[in-house]
Amino acid sequence: MSQSTLMEKLSWRYATKKMDPEQVVPQDKVDQIVEAVRMAPTSSGTQPFELFVITNPGIRAEIRKVAWDQSPITEGSHLLVFAAWDNYSADRIDAVTAQMTDERGEIPMLNQYYDNLKAKYLPRDETVNHDHAARQAYIALGFALAAAAELGVDSTPMEGFDPAKVDEILGLKDRGLRSVLLLPLGYRQADGDWLLPMKKVRKASETMVTLID
Amino acid sequence: MSQSTLMEKLSWRYATKKMDPEQVVPQDKVDQIVEAVRMAPTSSGTQPFELFVITNPGIRAEIRKVAWDQSPITEGSHLLVFAAWDNYSADRIDAVTAQMTDERGEIPMLNQYYDNLKAKYLPRDETVNHDHAARQAYIALGFALAAAAELGVDSTPMEGFDPAKVDEILGLKDRGLRSVLLLPLGYRQADGDWLLPMKKVRKASETMVTLID
Repeated sequence: MSQSTLMEKLSWRYATKKMDPEQVVPQDKVDQIVEAVRMAPTSSGTQPFELFVITNPGIRAEIRKVAWDQSPITEGSHLLVFAAWDNYSADRIDAVTAQMTDERGEIPMLNQYYDNLKAKYLPRDETVNHDHAARQAYIALGFALAAAAELGVDSTPMEGFDPAKVDEILGLKDRGLRSVLLLPLGYRQADGDWLLPMKKVRKASETMVTLID
Repeated sequence: MSQSTLMEKLSWRYATKKMDPEQVVPQDKVDQIVEAVRMAPTSSGTQPFELFVITNPGIRAEIRKVAWDQSPITEGSHLLVFAAWDNYSADRIDAVTAQMTDERGEIPMLNQYYDNLKAKYLPRDETVNHDHAARQAYIALGFALAAAAELGVDSTPMEGFDPAKVDEILGLKDRGLRSVLLLPLGYRQADGDWLLPMKKVRKASETMVTLID
């Protein structure tokens, strides 16, 4: 099987545990990773999350304290925080419809489609809606990880943090957002990372994949 | 900003609405997309989902019926179904630990880490655990979408289906799995897809991204 560059890069990447604090990810690479997040598909095109790109050392130090002291948060040069909508709302969905109409022109059935979506989402429990929004951020995380790997940038996807405290640090509650994922970007410190020399462990295809032909 | 090939491809991709039923995705490309799913990182490395790769026309026709009649399900050559664990269990987590120990040797703290994980997960409500497992599948969806795009393969990520019915068609319940995502693979039928000529709509960076420096 001939492997494309991307496949090699997806195998190269790993959840970096120790980053070199002296190395900074160049702005054009950060821009491309952010662009991958922006390009990620989401359910009904709502893009129900926002992205925070944090270089500020003080803020990152605060976040590290409520994230099990994971060092890449401050050793990397950039910290991405994915923050999903706390809930769907008529205003939020209407803004999506308005932008689509603005950029594509009037499309038959577009308003009907999003009216149906509102009828489905708005009566639902807030936790169900937030969860659905959060899942969309995970697709974008996949895009960010793939883009970073493609660019030779290391990254460390993290769920291990206190979301309420991160929300407080970033003032997310007033913006109707809840933090769901952290992603430090930087470069591996080869001699200090216990995970780097370890074999990448993944389930065998036979365990994970079922063919139905 | 110089764009890498991957960035161009992520912009090229779109949720294909009409696929050419005459075109088949070559096996080596399917293999690479499946490999991207297998390589996707997951929380604590549990890989809490399985992947079904379906070419069988009858099964795909059945699934299409419970998926809003979305035509790429049968027009594409392959249908991927992501099915997340219904719950975490001691057996499932122990299998992860066993494989890691098997492939990496005994690692200090490994058993302690996964004992802590069990203490956290096992008492939780099944829906919370399934939701957490499902989120991991969304990261892998991101990898699959990126890999497909890189290979010039079209795909259509779908949440719009009746999961209970798909579970029934594939016999997932007895395997402790629940379907969470569909992803037909194939090739766009350029003259029959209403979405293809439309401008890709994404929120502006200014709307979606906040810099904290």
